[in-house]
Amino acid sequence: MRSNHRGADALRPVSFETGFTQNADGSVLVSFGDTKVICTAFLEERVPQFIKHQNLESGRKRGWATGEYGMLPGSTHSRTDREAARGRQSGRTIEISRLIGRALRTCFDFDLLEDRTVKVDCDVIQADGGTRTASITGGATALSLCLWKHREKFLDRPIVRRVAAVSLGIVKGQVLVDLDYREDSNAEVDLNLVMDHRRSFVEIQGAAERDPFTHEQLSEFLAYGEAAIASLLDQQKAALVNAGVDPSWIP
Amino acid sequence: MRSNHRGADALRPVSFETGFTQNADGSVLVSFGDTKVICTAFLEERVPQFIKHQNLESGRKRGWATGEYGMLPGSTHSRTDREAARGRQSGRTIEISRLIGRALRTCFDFDLLEDRTVKVDCDVIQADGGTRTASITGGATALSLCLWKHREKFLDRPIVRRVAAVSLGIVKGQVLVDLDYREDSNAEVDLNLVMDHRRSFVEIQGAAERDPFTHEQLSEFLAYGEAAIASLLDQQKAALVNAGVDPSWIP
Amino acid sequence: MRSNHRGADALRPVSFETGFTQNADGSVLVSFGDTKVICTAFLEERVPQFIKHQNLESGRKRGWATGEYGMLPGSTHSRTDREAARGRQSGRTIEISRLIGRALRTCFDFDLLEDRTVKVDCDVIQADGGTRTASITGGATALSLCLWKHREKFLDRPIVRRVAAVSLGIVKGQVLVDLDYREDSNAEVDLNLVMDHRRSFVEIQGAAERDPFTHEQLSEFLAYGEAAIASLLDQQKAALVNAGVDPSWIP
Amino acid sequence: MRSNHRGADALRPVSFETGFTQNADGSVLVSFGDTKVICTAFLEERVPQFIKHQNLESGRKRGWATGEYGMLPGSTHSRTDREAARGRQSGRTIEISRLIGRALRTCFDFDLLEDRTVKVDCDVIQADGGTRTASITGGATALSLCLWKHREKFLDRPIVRRVAAVSLGIVKGQVLVDLDYREDSNAEVDLNLVMDHRRSFVEIQGAAERDPFTHEQLSEFLAYGEAAIASLLDQQKAALVNAGVDPSWIP
Amino acid sequence: MRSNHRGADALRPVSFETGFTQNADGSVLVSFGDTKVICTAFLEERVPQFIKHQNLESGRKRGWATGEYGMLPGSTHSRTDREAARGRQSGRTIEISRLIGRALRTCFDFDLLEDRTVKVDCDVIQADGGTRTASITGGATALSLCLWKHREKFLDRPIVRRVAAVSLGIVKGQVLVDLDYREDSNAEVDLNLVMDHRRSFVEIQGAAERDPFTHEQLSEFLAYGEAAIASLLDQQKAALVNAGVDPSWIP
Amino acid sequence: MRSNHRGADALRPVSFETGFTQNADGSVLVSFGDTKVICTAFLEERVPQFIKHQNLESGRKRGWATGEYGMLPGSTHSRTDREAARGRQSGRTIEISRLIGRALRTCFDFDLLEDRTVKVDCDVIQADGGTRTASITGGATALSLCLWKHREKFLDRPIVRRVAAVSLGIVKGQVLVDLDYREDSNAEVDLNLVMDHRRSFVEIQGAAERDPFTHEQLSEFLAYGEAAIASLLDQQKAALVNAGVDPSWIP
Repeated sequence: MRSNHRGADALRPVSFETGFTQNADGSVLVSFGDTKVICTAFLEERVPQFIKHQNLESGRKRGWATGEYGMLPGSTHSRTDREAARGRQSGRTIEISRLIGRALRTCFDFDLLEDRTVKVDCDVIQADGGTRTASITGGATALSLCLWKHREKFLDRPIVRRVAAVSLGIVKGQVLVDLDYREDSNAEVDLNLVMDHRRSFVEIQGAAERDPFTHEQLSEFLAYGEAAIASLLDQQKAALVNAGVDPSWIP
Repeated sequence: MRSNHRGADALRPVSFETGFTQNADGSVLVSFGDTKVICTAFLEERVPQFIKHQNLESGRKRGWATGEYGMLPGSTHSRTDREAARGRQSGRTIEISRLIGRALRTCFDFDLLEDRTVKVDCDVIQADGGTRTASITGGATALSLCLWKHREKFLDRPIVRRVAAVSLGIVKGQVLVDLDYREDSNAEVDLNLVMDHRRSFVEIQGAAERDPFTHEQLSEFLAYGEAAIASLLDQQKAALVNAGVDPSWIP
Repeated sequence: MRSNHRGADALRPVSFETGFTQNADGSVLVSFGDTKVICTAFLEERVPQFIKHQNLESGRKRGWATGEYGMLPGSTHSRTDREAARGRQSGRTIEISRLIGRALRTCFDFDLLEDRTVKVDCDVIQADGGTRTASITGGATALSLCLWKHREKFLDRPIVRRVAAVSLGIVKGQVLVDLDYREDSNAEVDLNLVMDHRRSFVEIQGAAERDPFTHEQLSEFLAYGEAAIASLLDQQKAALVNAGVDPSWIP
Repeated sequence: MRSNHRGADALRPVSFETGFTQNADGSVLVSFGDTKVICTAFLEERVPQFIKHQNLESGRKRGWATGEYGMLPGSTHSRTDREAARGRQSGRTIEISRLIGRALRTCFDFDLLEDRTVKVDCDVIQADGGTRTASITGGATALSLCLWKHREKFLDRPIVRRVAAVSLGIVKGQVLVDLDYREDSNAEVDLNLVMDHRRSFVEIQGAAERDPFTHEQLSEFLAYGEAAIASLLDQQKAALVNAGVDPSWIP
Repeated sequence: MRSNHRGADALRPVSFETGFTQNADGSVLVSFGDTKVICTAFLEERVPQFIKHQNLESGRKRGWATGEYGMLPGSTHSRTDREAARGRQSGRTIEISRLIGRALRTCFDFDLLEDRTVKVDCDVIQADGGTRTASITGGATALSLCLWKHREKFLDRPIVRRVAAVSLGIVKGQVLVDLDYREDSNAEVDLNLVMDHRRSFVEIQGAAERDPFTHEQLSEFLAYGEAAIASLLDQQKAALVNAGVDPSWIP
Repeated sequence: MRSNHRGADALRPVSFETGFTQNADGSVLVSFGDTKVICTAFLEERVPQFIKHQNLESGRKRGWATGEYGMLPGSTHSRTDREAARGRQSGRTIEISRLIGRALRTCFDFDLLEDRTVKVDCDVIQADGGTRTASITGGATALSLCLWKHREKFLDRPIVRRVAAVSLGIVKGQVLVDLDYREDSNAEVDLNLVMDHRRSFVEIQGAAERDPFTHEQLSEFLAYGEAAIASLLDQQKAALVNAGVDPSWIP
């Protein structure tokens, strides 16, 4: 029995509190149930060294985007050590940051971004399962707000794709959508799915935690996941429009 | 002219949103104007190694408390590099963490805490000046909530002192209370004051940024600071009572 | 046109040189074409601290397995900086190590391993695409050799599953199996697949490098991947038998 | 009873051995009783990256000064671990280095220093309390010697202020000046005071170690401290004159 | 009694497998008995920052060479922790890398190399004593192959010296050549000798592990070592010729 | 021409200022001309973890000794970066620390030291060539003072050997003893020699900086070095006797 009589394929209540903080160019507090992540985005008028070199060699003027992830020490049930104090990010943090960065970079046409960088940060202030997929969903929202704010700088909209993500799992043989922490701790399989507004796959990461999974289970994952992401994309778009973004500007 | 017609000795609007996150034992979002800090506190049933050794040697059973500080990358006007990713906390972060830890430890009777540790984290989600003093004021609130939650574990209340803090500065020769970022950037002198509920000094840190300061200016700092901290302590107490803490339990 | 007239679904020549080095408990040089990885495995009579704690709490006596990955500086076309000298593993290395560790842990029944650890190392001496999947395939071979060597220590075989892995990609719209470096550099989508000897999925990691992929393409990935892994599992088994492992002992 | 029948407001015997080492541009061994610190200063014909940028933006040509602090492993009663070997400075070392740097920077008119950097190092060879205030007092001496040596490079003397510092504390309710290690270990309050040759405050850092302190105690701190620093500034000036510095060149 | 009835002055069977890997510009698997080291060399068309500065100051155009050393975790009898994962090279690794770099740099005329760098990596895949001397002997081979491959870039051969190295030790009072791991563990004295093709000394590092050694023992070390190195240099030359290097090109 | 009309085989003026600092158990400021090193030694009533394990396994109760080396930032002609601030010791520092530790450990009978550790620190306060050999010579002095102070703890003197060291070099084809910085910068060969009071070799480290060296030159090195070390050992003994050590207690 899932909490709040939730169905196997049901998302938790999702919300997007845009403009949650005011210093970043784009900012949102995204909630998937009790999982809450502050996502911020900045546009910087320079690119990292390795892109600079690529641009020099190719004679182009392309941009870049980064995604980073962190958990506040107080976000978890028992306190998590502060990574900055330990002087090292955990392997989990690095793996998630890379996933977020990869997924968010698919949103861009970097030729249109020109030699600028968009930096997205996803900081979990309350963790209850699915923090990486909430981060991607919120991060994509924050970067849209950031580029909308700076839209006058671009000849054409540098965003070509809108993405959202959901976590799935198998608990006692049953595929579930958007697992909370208690469910996640008991999952036999863990799958994270990122899709775009055209219902194509951006990233799929499924891992057997205890037992391998079958073709049938994978199909169920994809069906449940696609429906959930469609709903997330709708809510994300509504939040952007609500924040003043012109609907025709949104992919 | 200060923003919002604020007087030289006036605090910005202050708020304490207790229970802001739910996993920590005590949690508050403290705001001093646009400066916003999430403060959380956990009680752990063990002490650090060096206290363990001291206890073994002295035959006592004393506890400990720690304070840590961080800024979200998206909290500042232009993005701040993530310290965990750089693999090193800045000197500023370390200095502030030490100040917070020292100030909060004066709140405790560690013999009554027994061999437990209270860990307080102050994470700035929006920075507009005075983040270290907001952190101390919020951190003292979070640890009170934490110990109130666990009050049944103690023979007697292990908190013996309640503290709050305010930043002061001299801008164009004028002493100001609770500087925002713009004022702080132009301050000739910077002074942070921590006091307890009996109006004694817990910590005073004054530094000439450009010009040294005089006895008269120091006296003015102390007078302005004391009044501001008295107000902060009142609001802090009201927030604790509002959160259900028995007034007679609060120092 | 693939090199050596290889078909889209064809593996490169694969070889398992068991006993390649002699100090480790199990050792193999695995080659997928020009990609060559030394995989070694050791059985240690202790478990990491966090498993020790779990065992203490649960009253059980479970083991653990780790997987680590590295590239020799001379393994790549232009020299790769030595991570030990830089003092930091790259995010890519950490991500791959975590994938290898996760995949190899599914091979074990940790209750039968008792409080021991199997440590698998995969060090690339020559890189030509697909090093992570070659590492998993070779690592699973090395750990089998390691446990076969120590089989007398166990009441029952602690290996319950045998795994292999292959990389796939889409190049110019065409799904390819086991990409070499040149192909991999031009892939629009990158997918790594780990399956076990019962043809179940152990891990699936697909990422759009440039363009998202469709349901149809995913199906093609899975069909091609499953066939390739079946072949790898056969060759892996033959190598184990050749090295003297009793066929009935092999899952 | 203080050692050597010292009064509560009395400094320990202080000495400045200028030219203690010969490679640095300015060098002094400063002693406050048994506390001994080697202070050296170098003038470098370049500025750090961030000052370079500020200069570029502002069209000015300003200099900079740094202060660093360290303790030899053999300087303390029981050996202190070598920070370079541990790969990390302690929070205490970082906090003290920042204090020294801030205090010494107030000595300069950076426009007159032009785009040069003065680097001051304070290395404790024997510790008996008050190492940070001895470091500031000795560091200010070393930088004066350094700039005197290079005086021909400047249109006008780039030093506009001379500073010295003393530590104070409350032991058994009594304010004491210049505490030795034994006294410091028992202090209820710890206060470090930095003042300039015009008797203005450069830095004040007071911290309750056990009990908060009162307005009266703070006044006593300031009175005792001011008198002690006046004496230190006299001895410092005498040492500079003795080392050949023209008295009229000294602030 | 040495294994395989080896005489006190006899080398273990030595082999040079040139072209062992194919991505590096020069590559060899060198074996001294069961000690096996992969040595690779790359020519890079740039020099490190500090050489760049020296060249700018001197108006010359000199090159540089580096040597690095590592052990695969699986190379030793019980697994060695991965240094990249620990985030720190051991002191032993750093000491050996410096020895290798120093020894290999004597092979060059850096004026003829012009502003290029040769980077040599020595990675031990199986350790049985004498890994550092095998690394130098193999490293010198790899760099010869590397420069032979790029010989058209140079007016004149930038290699002026060919080196090889051997380890020696005293076990139970007897001087032995080329100790294996078991012998090395029991050695009272340990001496590593590097000589060039003109029989001059490039490096001599002798250390009393338990007992100091006498003039007579040192003479014996040098006599045994010189003979062994002469043999190594012959085999090294044969391997180079075998790999297609023109004998007249070899120093 | 050497400075001060020094002969090729002549040491610079050497001095041992015992008791230079007072917190360590043994302390000396050793000078070789303008090279000055503070050497301190502490006796600790515990051993490192790895010795603890060896003792447990062997049923013995052996001790250990460590040597560490550092240079004050102000010790060199132009300032050297503080290694603790950079967070990493240089390869040179690590190499020298290892040499010092190895050389000093030969002084002990660790069975007589029992499960204690002697920690020796050598910190260069002024560098003018030969800092590593001055460190060994001074370090051996400091550890003698340390053990003399604690002599009542031991059944028998745990020191069985007394060592000293000197640097040698070839400049313009001429072998020189005890090179200063200017000579060292121009040396073609660099050799450091450590010998004991019985004139046996403890460590010999010779490296061709530019040109390899011959048998004849090596013989000259050893003859010059032996004479210089004999003189150093005499002066070291005199310093120990002068500091109150019973001559019959000195090896």
